Amino acid sequence: MPAAALSAPDAVALERLLAVRPRLVAVRPAGEVVPGLERDLILHAAPPQPWAEMSELLRGGMIGAALNEGLAATPEEAARKAAAGEIRFAAAQDHASMAGGVGSITWSTPMMVIEDAASGRRAFHPVMEGLTGKALVLGMFEPEVLERLRWMREVLAPALESSLQRIGGIDAHALMIEALRRGDELHNRNAAASSLAAELLAPGLAKAGLAAAEIERVFAFVRTNPQFFVAVSLAASRLACDAADGVPGSGLVTACGANGTDTGIRVSGLPGRWFAAPAEVPEGVFFPGFSAADAGRGCGDSLLIECYGLGGTLLAAAPALWPVVGVDEARARQIYADAQQIALGEHADYRVPLLGGAAAPAGVDVRRVVATGLRPVIDIVLVHRELGRGAVGFGLTSPPLACFQQAVAALDAAAA
Amino acid sequence: MPAAALSAPDAVALERLLAVRPRLVAVRPAGEVVPGLERDLILHAAPPQPWAEMSELLRGGMIGAALNEGLAATPEEAARKAAAGEIRFAAAQDHASMAGGVGSITWSTPMMVIEDAASGRRAFHPVMEGLTGKALVLGMFEPEVLERLRWMREVLAPALESSLQRIGGIDAHALMIEALRRGDELHNRNAAASSLAAELLAPGLAKAGLAAAEIERVFAFVRTNPQFFVAVSLAASRLACDAADGVPGSGLVTACGANGTDTGIRVSGLPGRWFAAPAEVPEGVFFPGFSAADAGRGCGDSLLIECYGLGGTLLAAAPALWPVVGVDEARARQIYADAQQIALGEHADYRVPLLGGAAAPAGVDVRRVVATGLRPVIDIVLVHRELGRGAVGFGLTSPPLACFQQAVAALDAAAA
Repeated sequence: MPAAALSAPDAVALERLLAVRPRLVAVRPAGEVVPGLERDLILHAAPPQPWAEMSELLRGGMIGAALNEGLAATPEEAARKAAAGEIRFAAAQDHASMAGGVGSITWSTPMMVIEDAASGRRAFHPVMEGLTGKALVLGMFEPEVLERLRWMREVLAPALESSLQRIGGIDAHALMIEALRRGDELHNRNAAASSLAAELLAPGLAKAGLAAAEIERVFAFVRTNPQFFVAVSLAASRLACDAADGVPGSGLVTACGANGTDTGIRVSGLPGRWFAAPAEVPEGVFFPGFSAADAGRGCGDSLLIECYGLGGTLLAAAPALWPVVGVDEARARQIYADAQQIALGEHADYRVPLLGGAAAPAGVDVRRVVATGLRPVIDIVLVHRELGRGAVGFGLTSPPLACFQQAVAALDAAAA
Repeated sequence: MPAAALSAPDAVALERLLAVRPRLVAVRPAGEVVPGLERDLILHAAPPQPWAEMSELLRGGMIGAALNEGLAATPEEAARKAAAGEIRFAAAQDHASMAGGVGSITWSTPMMVIEDAASGRRAFHPVMEGLTGKALVLGMFEPEVLERLRWMREVLAPALESSLQRIGGIDAHALMIEALRRGDELHNRNAAASSLAAELLAPGLAKAGLAAAEIERVFAFVRTNPQFFVAVSLAASRLACDAADGVPGSGLVTACGANGTDTGIRVSGLPGRWFAAPAEVPEGVFFPGFSAADAGRGCGDSLLIECYGLGGTLLAAAPALWPVVGVDEARARQIYADAQQIALGEHADYRVPLLGGAAAPAGVDVRRVVATGLRPVIDIVLVHRELGRGAVGFGLTSPPLACFQQAVAALDAAAA
């Protein structure tokens, strides 16, 4: 760990970050639970982006969301309403929520509800469609995609909710601790975590009164969706970072996302302000038939999880993911060591067996990033830059240094 | 891999070993499925041991088995009948079965039934009690142990059987491939494999018509028993080794076990003959309050799984197990490299992410063991040498070199 003592504000922010103990307590429609959501509002990956400045890819995701929610009957109507301000947009992370990829949150989106037991604070992420094949989270909105979303709303989400109430929720904190021992890093590998969640949900689902055919479809959905749990791990990072937000003077990163055009961060000391710069194009390993020319700029709120201390930061926990994102053991170890240099502390409970049980670096400090030039390393799904083409591989990216530099300058200005 | 070309017999035996694709197809009482089992016969960990020569610990396990099966009403009656030959004993591995620890197989023991799809060949392991707390597999037979075994026979086993028939069995081969990517080595760490099995069994269990309270108890049993799956992985190793048995001239190890007194092996070229020597006392990491003075000699059929190519051979796949058995990354890598030197080939499907996807060494060759002096390294639960004390830690052991030397000499004599 860095030798430098923490400033009092950073110590407070870190303490709040580390005190969070996430539980998955419910699955509810976004309109019932997400603060500040309205029927004509679509939440997307941060930073906030007006319709006129959105990438074609993100616009596609928003059009799909409008169709899925019934805010428009055709893509043309959706685009017209968006341009006219009849459909509005905001960043999910400004609403205690996370939107993956070019995904969206609208009034009826079924949300995983994550709660901190001690404080009652909540955060949210849509029930995950999955990243294989066609999905709205990848900017696709063919009839088969919308039909699956309807089934998720009408059958899957109520079944998950019924199960959660019967089993009294799931201790996501304990589950994530064990998943790190089972080869997940909890961003792009949640295979073990998803199986653990399925195992915990099973007795509740068995009693949920589902028809026989639906029982099989629900279990098959979870079983064939190794990213089912990412909805929980991402919302857990949102929950902890929200808890750490708003400590004057603290440089702890409390939000991070990319919207296909820009990447942005927020810091605890200046709540509500985004510091953005053009998003980088991730590098990585492409699926057969694709190359670097196909990759679009980074997109998605999931970049936050590395700032919390999981995901790419802990690639050393997930050897099965190394060839997928294009790293080896030495690189995974270096990413961890670099993350220690820019973190304010560590998560005593989140540990990496391969590193002798070393703890996860916790809470990225914008000042340490600027001082060292080291940035959080994020593993990320690569989405094709053209709408409708979907995922093309996996790789690594980082928020631009300019984001951190702007935040430090603003913190300095606020202190002056 | 060793550069030396395989002899024709070894090539045949290895090919048969590698061709096996284990499926979990049923859970049935041993009396219905285990070849050669009779109502007065108790199967124990190999090598075969007459009652008069059994260790106190193994005798305790046999007495518990007799009580559990109703072959005797008191420990004294069980011991008297055993001494008189009214209760008989044999090695489980000579009956296509595996007995863990000081465990036993009797007529009504519920068995996991593992089948090779292509050949129809079957192998068997009791549904696993678990290794924490009190269990017959650790030589304990208090009323609470026998009561749990009754519930396992009367409720759990029929529920598992019902689920398996509804879901059409479980592809254990595919499951083990994925578990190696989730930090299991499939001998003393089966946490991920057990969750995967629970996930696959769940929809079948949901439809099995269990009472509400029993649903919870069944799921809780599996969830709190991270060694639930070892019954499958051990039977899979028995299945493959039986397939490889009986090739004249082959030195492939087809059986390996320890009975608390001796450790023994069999080889493909001399089916049915055991080559035994005094079992070593495993070294390892003791639970608080215990020390090396408490450990008994190795006991259990599970030693076979390392000869098949899983377990300790693949400790590099299971970093979370390293501190439990007392190894570090360098030692785990060395064990793998040494195993390559004594293996006849490799399992193309069983791979270790940490080792760049290197394949599991497959099939221990007695001649290579004798030529190199390298022995299979087995991770093992340490059982207290006194009856009724249970597990005291985890560690490593190896079959004595004398077993391999005897086998090579016998192969040479048979060829002369």
